[in-house]
Amino acid sequence: MSFTARATVSGDPQSQAHREDASDVWAYCEQLGRKAKEAWRHMAQVRGAVKDAALRRAAQQLRARQAEILQANQEDLARAAELGLTAAQIDRLQLNPKRIESMAVGLEAVAALPDPVGQIIEGSVRPNGLEIRKVRVPLGVIFFIYESRPNVTADAAALALKSGNAIILRGGKEAVASNTAIFRILSETFREVGIPEHAVQLIDRPERAIVTEFLHLPQYIDLVIPRGGEGLIRTVAEEAQMPVLKHYKGNCHVYVDASADLEMAERIVVNAKCQRPGVCNAAESLLVHQAVAEQFLPRIAHALEQRGVELRGCPRTRQYLPHIRAATEEDFAAEYLDLIISVAVVDDLEAAIAHINRFGSGHTDAIVTGNLMAAQRFVNGVDSAAVMINASTRFHDGYEFGLGAEIGISTDKFHARGPCGLTELTTYKWVVWGEGQVRE
Amino acid sequence: MSFTARATVSGDPQSQAHREDASDVWAYCEQLGRKAKEAWRHMAQVRGAVKDAALRRAAQQLRARQAEILQANQEDLARAAELGLTAAQIDRLQLNPKRIESMAVGLEAVAALPDPVGQIIEGSVRPNGLEIRKVRVPLGVIFFIYESRPNVTADAAALALKSGNAIILRGGKEAVASNTAIFRILSETFREVGIPEHAVQLIDRPERAIVTEFLHLPQYIDLVIPRGGEGLIRTVAEEAQMPVLKHYKGNCHVYVDASADLEMAERIVVNAKCQRPGVCNAAESLLVHQAVAEQFLPRIAHALEQRGVELRGCPRTRQYLPHIRAATEEDFAAEYLDLIISVAVVDDLEAAIAHINRFGSGHTDAIVTGNLMAAQRFVNGVDSAAVMINASTRFHDGYEFGLGAEIGISTDKFHARGPCGLTELTTYKWVVWGEGQVRE
Repeated sequence: MSFTARATVSGDPQSQAHREDASDVWAYCEQLGRKAKEAWRHMAQVRGAVKDAALRRAAQQLRARQAEILQANQEDLARAAELGLTAAQIDRLQLNPKRIESMAVGLEAVAALPDPVGQIIEGSVRPNGLEIRKVRVPLGVIFFIYESRPNVTADAAALALKSGNAIILRGGKEAVASNTAIFRILSETFREVGIPEHAVQLIDRPERAIVTEFLHLPQYIDLVIPRGGEGLIRTVAEEAQMPVLKHYKGNCHVYVDASADLEMAERIVVNAKCQRPGVCNAAESLLVHQAVAEQFLPRIAHALEQRGVELRGCPRTRQYLPHIRAATEEDFAAEYLDLIISVAVVDDLEAAIAHINRFGSGHTDAIVTGNLMAAQRFVNGVDSAAVMINASTRFHDGYEFGLGAEIGISTDKFHARGPCGLTELTTYKWVVWGEGQVRE
Repeated sequence: MSFTARATVSGDPQSQAHREDASDVWAYCEQLGRKAKEAWRHMAQVRGAVKDAALRRAAQQLRARQAEILQANQEDLARAAELGLTAAQIDRLQLNPKRIESMAVGLEAVAALPDPVGQIIEGSVRPNGLEIRKVRVPLGVIFFIYESRPNVTADAAALALKSGNAIILRGGKEAVASNTAIFRILSETFREVGIPEHAVQLIDRPERAIVTEFLHLPQYIDLVIPRGGEGLIRTVAEEAQMPVLKHYKGNCHVYVDASADLEMAERIVVNAKCQRPGVCNAAESLLVHQAVAEQFLPRIAHALEQRGVELRGCPRTRQYLPHIRAATEEDFAAEYLDLIISVAVVDDLEAAIAHINRFGSGHTDAIVTGNLMAAQRFVNGVDSAAVMINASTRFHDGYEFGLGAEIGISTDKFHARGPCGLTELTTYKWVVWGEGQVRE
């Protein structure tokens, strides 16, 4: 939908002002989009060595200009109370020398990854002599929406640059000064090294209408990546007229099978729940085979409760753990991101698979088992981005899988599933070399 | 959007009837969707040998029950005039023993392809001993909308079955009897061999609201594939709450470079334009480097006009070919699907690339050149699904690329680009085998 189609056509002065605002927003977005697309076309001619040099030099500059970043961060922190940020949000917003160093190391790590662009995914010579090559190429212009953590500005810019895309960054208002400082350093460095000026752009205006406008510019934006709450992602997915890389919630399960080594099961459940409860690959639900429920439940309850975890159980669970609260259907569907876990006793493996496919979010689910057939059946039956056998759900991430840095974890099945690194920010084209062949 | 949200809440009898209809449509779609999803879960347990046997047996049955199909086709043909079909549409609708044989051969060809499901796309062992496997799995339930040609019923069912997906088929009303007959034969045969009953379903009701309803059932439908006119595809893409595999128009170019072998250029342009003008990979536009315009234009005009092609040219083209009509911007953007071609003289390679990226549809574009640098620059600069060097655009298709059968050619960049065969109807999951590892 174009702006014109949505503008109100009323004569009163307020509408008039609103219309001018809207028209102004549209012009702003149109210009950023057009420049990004042009920059992207020039990116095709930038060699890998130049991209890597840009990233390494930006890392140096982040270190050298640390004071500038910390000062900007202070401005954001000074406004945090006014914006009503929680302690956790303030923690995520706050930068310090260690966090800036880790941002710099992140850029260097991306520079060290192999360049995905130009990779020949497959190739063959056809009987008529045509040489067919399926070649990896950048996707185009990425519109990236994120919240709180200013280090994401550097991470996202680095991944987009390395994969040959242009990116338009839209950070949260709570981090505007920090994001601007980081962006300025990256942008200046990139340009010095020979990266097209508008390959990385930061939206420097606050209007919320800007997001909507970009979602309606499919001629410029090839992909949207919203990183934030479920509400943001759903709104973006509904409005966007181009593909969206979605990362919905992680309602991850650990299923303890009849044949599980219970010591291993305890270790995995405790790790999956407690090692970092606020992230998407933490476990939110425990399923226990009825044959080991009596033995395992008191043991795991003790281990979890020692670590401050609240258990909420189904009726059969509460036969063994009468002190815990009853779990509702909402509990089984919940992504707590907190020290709470729902627990259900299941009849068998098939019941566990059915429970996961019903309540899960298709993110990460684990089985603990000594039985090979059970492991294989679980792998085939559970429809999730990652399935773990005898390992913690916490391993589902780009670094742990060996992909290097990631821009998110997709719970979609289309284009990319699971960790989205450099490869997932590319597409391919077919290149056909002939010697004058025509079709009969 | 759910049905309830869209239903009118008026009390008059007509609205009431409408509401009951709508509620009935919703129930019908909901049931088909739910059954498809259930069938898909069972498909995961069907071995490749069973799928292949089902396809080969269905091929036999199409041959054996040919009379039944031809009789149904007669019913459709008898209604063709009443529906106002054009001669071309009637030709596409009409079946005969040869076309039925080719449908059967198509099923056997799909059976002979390697099974994409279970393919390990990549795998590694991490330093902590975790074995990471990226494994190809079916996408889920496909909603497939198509027009006219009844053979598509068999093709689409075969590709969906082989790739482990469930499919819901929505054919055009002009082919309802033929589609039903073909579907009945496939469905009966598949069931006998052990394929879940609802893995392949045909919508047997005419209401247009059914299409809209399915586009609002993301819990059941994983992918929509609309095959038909641009209007249908745009409507589906706008309404759908799930991914859509889009195949927009093919405005394909042949660019004749300064260094082209002009005999080869003539052969390729004639083939690309005339070998089958009504298809998406036929050429619609010819670009000629100014250095060879004087020599090449009269020659190609003669060759094309001999074959009944109308040329429409830019002002510089018409200096050499004053007898042809002037081309407008609409001409350069047009997918004629007919014996018409737009022609422009360009200053150089960069101008050709810019013209293609401006007017093209990202489908297929070819260069004829003897210059290696020019070929490389064209490959990198043209943002299309397929780029041909010294070969006809007509080669852009799944069979010609060696992928086997295809369900369409994607002009999107996301998930799949170019020919969509079995692989493009799959996704992947990450399977992680451990021995009790937890994250530090």
